[in-house]
Amino acid sequence: MRIDILTILPELMKSPFSASIMQRAQDKGHVEIHFHNIRDYSTNKHKNVDDYQYGGGAGMVMSIEPIARVIDQLKSERTYDEIIYMTPDGEVLEQGLCNQLSLKNNLMILCGHYKGVDERVREHYITKEISIGSFVLSGGEVAASVLIDAIVRLIPGVLNDETSALTDSFQDGLLAPPVYTRPPEFNGWKVPDILLSGDPSKIEKWREEQAFERTKQRRPDLLEE
Amino acid sequence: MRIDILTILPELMKSPFSASIMQRAQDKGHVEIHFHNIRDYSTNKHKNVDDYQYGGGAGMVMSIEPIARVIDQLKSERTYDEIIYMTPDGEVLEQGLCNQLSLKNNLMILCGHYKGVDERVREHYITKEISIGSFVLSGGEVAASVLIDAIVRLIPGVLNDETSALTDSFQDGLLAPPVYTRPPEFNGWKVPDILLSGDPSKIEKWREEQAFERTKQRRPDLLEE
Repeated sequence: MRIDILTILPELMKSPFSASIMQRAQDKGHVEIHFHNIRDYSTNKHKNVDDYQYGGGAGMVMSIEPIARVIDQLKSERTYDEIIYMTPDGEVLEQGLCNQLSLKNNLMILCGHYKGVDERVREHYITKEISIGSFVLSGGEVAASVLIDAIVRLIPGVLNDETSALTDSFQDGLLAPPVYTRPPEFNGWKVPDILLSGDPSKIEKWREEQAFERTKQRRPDLLEE
Repeated sequence: MRIDILTILPELMKSPFSASIMQRAQDKGHVEIHFHNIRDYSTNKHKNVDDYQYGGGAGMVMSIEPIARVIDQLKSERTYDEIIYMTPDGEVLEQGLCNQLSLKNNLMILCGHYKGVDERVREHYITKEISIGSFVLSGGEVAASVLIDAIVRLIPGVLNDETSALTDSFQDGLLAPPVYTRPPEFNGWKVPDILLSGDPSKIEKWREEQAFERTKQRRPDLLEE
C-alpha cells in the first residue's frame, strides 16, 4: 500500500511512523508513507496556505489553490482508491471501514487545520471524509496517524502471531475479555482460578461470557447492530 | 495542567507535542507533559514488561508489576485527578468529556499494547478508561496523543482568536457549516453569493441552516441527544 499525506505540519507526524509496528511495516515493504508539505505548493510569496473566511468570523480557512496543486500532481502520477479528508463532520471511523481501507493500494489523506479547508476542495477532490470521533483536534495530523495505524496493522504480514488482530475487540462485534499474566498473585490480588485451571474448553467458555458481559455493560450499542 | 504519560514507546509520541499548538501550549506554561518509560521500572534482568496470557491464546499481556511501580511512585509525589487507561473497550471519547478533563490539574495516562494490560491494573489503579472509537490501534500512544490534543487546546490561553474553539463542531451540538476563502472563483467553482453579500444577519442565518442540514445528513445521532 502507498499512502500520501498532505499536511502543513509534516514534522508533527514523523514519530508515530518511526518506531515499532509502523516502522517495521515500512521496513518490510508492506506500506510506503509519503509526506507532502502543502506549503511547498503555495505560489504566494509568503507561502501562505490559509486566508480569512468569506462572510467573516473567527478562524482561518485553508485555501483551495495549493491543495488543488498537490492533488492534481499526485493524481497525474497514479490512480488513487480514495482521497480522504480528516474532518470532525466526516463518516465516523469504525473497524469495518478500517478493514475495507486496508485492502486498497493507493490512499491520499488530507489533514485539515484551523476552521477546515475551502468547501470546494471537499466537493471536487475528496472522495471520502472521515472523522475519528465526536471531538475536535488542533489539526488532522493526529487523526490521520490514528487512521493509518488502524489500517496498516491489518495488512497481511504486518502483525505476527504475538500481536494477532484476530482476537481484537470489535473484530467479532464484541469487546475483548479481560486478560491476566504473571504473577498469579500481586498485592493480594489474584488471577481468576479458571484461567489457571488448564481446562481449555472452560477457559474458552469463560472468555466468551466475559466478552459478552463486558460488551453489554460498556457498549450495548455494539449488540444492537 | 500536568500530564504524565506511561508508555513502553515514548519515542512514538515525541513529535505530536514538538510543534505547533501543542508545543506553544507547553512553552507558554499551560501544560507540562512528562513521559515515563514503563521499561525503566521493570526489575526483570531483560527489562521485560509483558508476558504470556494466563489460559493461553495469541498475544502478550502487559505485566502489573512495572506499571504498579510507576503509578505508586507518581501518586506519592502528587494527587491525580484521573488515572486514565486508553483502551478500545473504554468510555467513548466525546467533546463533553474533553471539556471536563480540560479543567483538571493532574492527569496520568497509561498507554496499552499487545492484548492490553493485566486486568488487576484496571481494577485497582485506573480511575477512567477511555476509547477514542470503535477500532483497534497498534498501541495506546496515538490514542493518548489524540486525547491530549483534544484536551489541551481547550485550556484557556492555548488557542488565540484565529483558532478559537467556540465555533468548533460539537460545541453547540451541531457540525460546523461549510467555509470558504479566496479566490471567489477557482476552476469555475464559485463561493456561494450569500457569503459575499456583506449582510451579517443573512450570513448568520445561512450558516445556522447549513450547520443544521449538515448535522441532519451526516450525524443525525447528534440531534437525537
